[in-house]
Amino acid sequence: MSPERLVSDVGEFALIERISRIVGRSNAIAGIGDDAAVLDTDGPEYQLATVDMLVESVHFDMDSTDAFDLGRRAIAINLSDIAACGGLPTVALTSLALSPTMPLGFVESMYSGMKQEASRFHAAIVGGNIAKTSGPLCIDVALLGRVPKPELVLRSGARVGDVLVVTGVLGAAAAARLEGRRAQMLTMVESTSSLARVSVPEPRIEAGRLLASLHFAHAMLDVSDGLAADLRHLTGSSGVGAVVREESLPVSISARRVAPSLGCAPVDLALFGGEDYELLAAIPESSVEAARHALGATPLYEVGTVLAPDQGVLLEQTGGKRIPLPEGGWKHF
Amino acid sequence: MSPERLVSDVGEFALIERISRIVGRSNAIAGIGDDAAVLDTDGPEYQLATVDMLVESVHFDMDSTDAFDLGRRAIAINLSDIAACGGLPTVALTSLALSPTMPLGFVESMYSGMKQEASRFHAAIVGGNIAKTSGPLCIDVALLGRVPKPELVLRSGARVGDVLVVTGVLGAAAAARLEGRRAQMLTMVESTSSLARVSVPEPRIEAGRLLASLHFAHAMLDVSDGLAADLRHLTGSSGVGAVVREESLPVSISARRVAPSLGCAPVDLALFGGEDYELLAAIPESSVEAARHALGATPLYEVGTVLAPDQGVLLEQTGGKRIPLPEGGWKHF
Repeated sequence: MSPERLVSDVGEFALIERISRIVGRSNAIAGIGDDAAVLDTDGPEYQLATVDMLVESVHFDMDSTDAFDLGRRAIAINLSDIAACGGLPTVALTSLALSPTMPLGFVESMYSGMKQEASRFHAAIVGGNIAKTSGPLCIDVALLGRVPKPELVLRSGARVGDVLVVTGVLGAAAAARLEGRRAQMLTMVESTSSLARVSVPEPRIEAGRLLASLHFAHAMLDVSDGLAADLRHLTGSSGVGAVVREESLPVSISARRVAPSLGCAPVDLALFGGEDYELLAAIPESSVEAARHALGATPLYEVGTVLAPDQGVLLEQTGGKRIPLPEGGWKHF
Repeated sequence: MSPERLVSDVGEFALIERISRIVGRSNAIAGIGDDAAVLDTDGPEYQLATVDMLVESVHFDMDSTDAFDLGRRAIAINLSDIAACGGLPTVALTSLALSPTMPLGFVESMYSGMKQEASRFHAAIVGGNIAKTSGPLCIDVALLGRVPKPELVLRSGARVGDVLVVTGVLGAAAAARLEGRRAQMLTMVESTSSLARVSVPEPRIEAGRLLASLHFAHAMLDVSDGLAADLRHLTGSSGVGAVVREESLPVSISARRVAPSLGCAPVDLALFGGEDYELLAAIPESSVEAARHALGATPLYEVGTVLAPDQGVLLEQTGGKRIPLPEGGWKHF
């Protein structure tokens, strides 16, 4: 008899695949595995719905976490999923698993952060739930949104020849996370607060709306697992191949600074680091300049090209050699 | 300087009150503190949204929990919130904090239970999130629903003279929970499985729809914190008083059986036990018979009467003496 299989034996993506099969198909336009569930309504808009949870000791440490920023982050990572569909957020519900010994001030400050981040995008917190736990703090946010039906963008629409663009630099979150962890391990620091501080990604709501409403983006998602992993989600859903050009990657300054001491290349942090929450979109080459103009101050970096499916998913190294894009990214199990 | 205040210093309801003030008002018809958020839409229906979390060691124990039933319960307690508004469920999103060492079979069985319970009411699971944790399993479900605008029922509509009704017996969940806990403490049992087994409440979706769509219910909520606490939610929201008649309370057989060994009166389990997930509604006296007829096999027990606000919230003891209804119920902190 084989030993009982554990969650860690199959990993996150296989687990989601199995759960997908169990819960079965629904009327949703997009469901499990997409950034947000897309629900048909009678009106001119689709409804969007997403959930994302932050867990203490996994996504943040209490010692080095500012409660206000933590609240902002809990909302921001959900906003990012709505942005990836080209939508606008509407309302959020928050669910906490909370220890009775948690300082009241921490909880209040966290909600102030949630409120501020939601308000920036005219979203309201309309409900929630608080449960007791003896374990780590868990913050789960459910966020609803909306998008005009003709403007919905999914992961699945990329076309051969499209340019792959990202809306900001990559690797900064990984650099902060890994340097914070290293500093903790070495216990060498007087203050790690600026390093291990929970980061608040900038939700690309406006950029997502523009890329969607102006019909630039054929496919879009947010880079949460790392560019390499998320690109595979996009190519897999779209049934295409792709090439990413190493020398075009917008590697963050902090990733360049930190990488040597971590014993990796800066580009590794950009490709595999994750938690950047920038948008990755496939847009026609003829639209790139117009899209860049429309986005104004938000950057649009060209990082690669969509290829035919038989070409696979490739990394073009500096010098021009193309290799299969290594697997990697931020897997949870 | 006073020591830092903790969550446990203020308790659940005061904490929710504080959070309410922080997140502020929204356009929602009903929000924090109600069973579900009620969102206006352009169409003929309101949208409903609710979240509810189950936490290992607080709401269930892994040792004595059947994964399938746990999944059903996670959905059922959310369905109950939709039922309390008179609505029908539409879609659910599920969020887990999960240990990598969790058996895969447990997770799959839990999702099968979620799927089955949702399907009973034609609701689909359309998305979710899985996060790693080193702590207790947390299962958070966000459930959306809908209700025709003229049929929405809130906690706040009770009128003086209304009859207070509940849709089933009370105290069974508390009896099972407390007897299971006692058995564990005494370690006297060969098998507690039938006692401590996670219970799956019957979501009163159909009864809620009927009481709402036939305009019987002036106010409604589900009894999750215990009849005494939830009645106070109803009277507080409605700005009324009420009297509950001890001898009219539909105390479950198991509560009657278990109470003596727990050193309490059966009626205490019904009033303060919580987790019954029956509906408590205020309906005009002239509608009671018609409502009972409409509900068919679902019982409708008359437990009291809505009074003027200055009369307070009272318990009429056997014999006719009226006393202030004792505070109590299932508080989380």
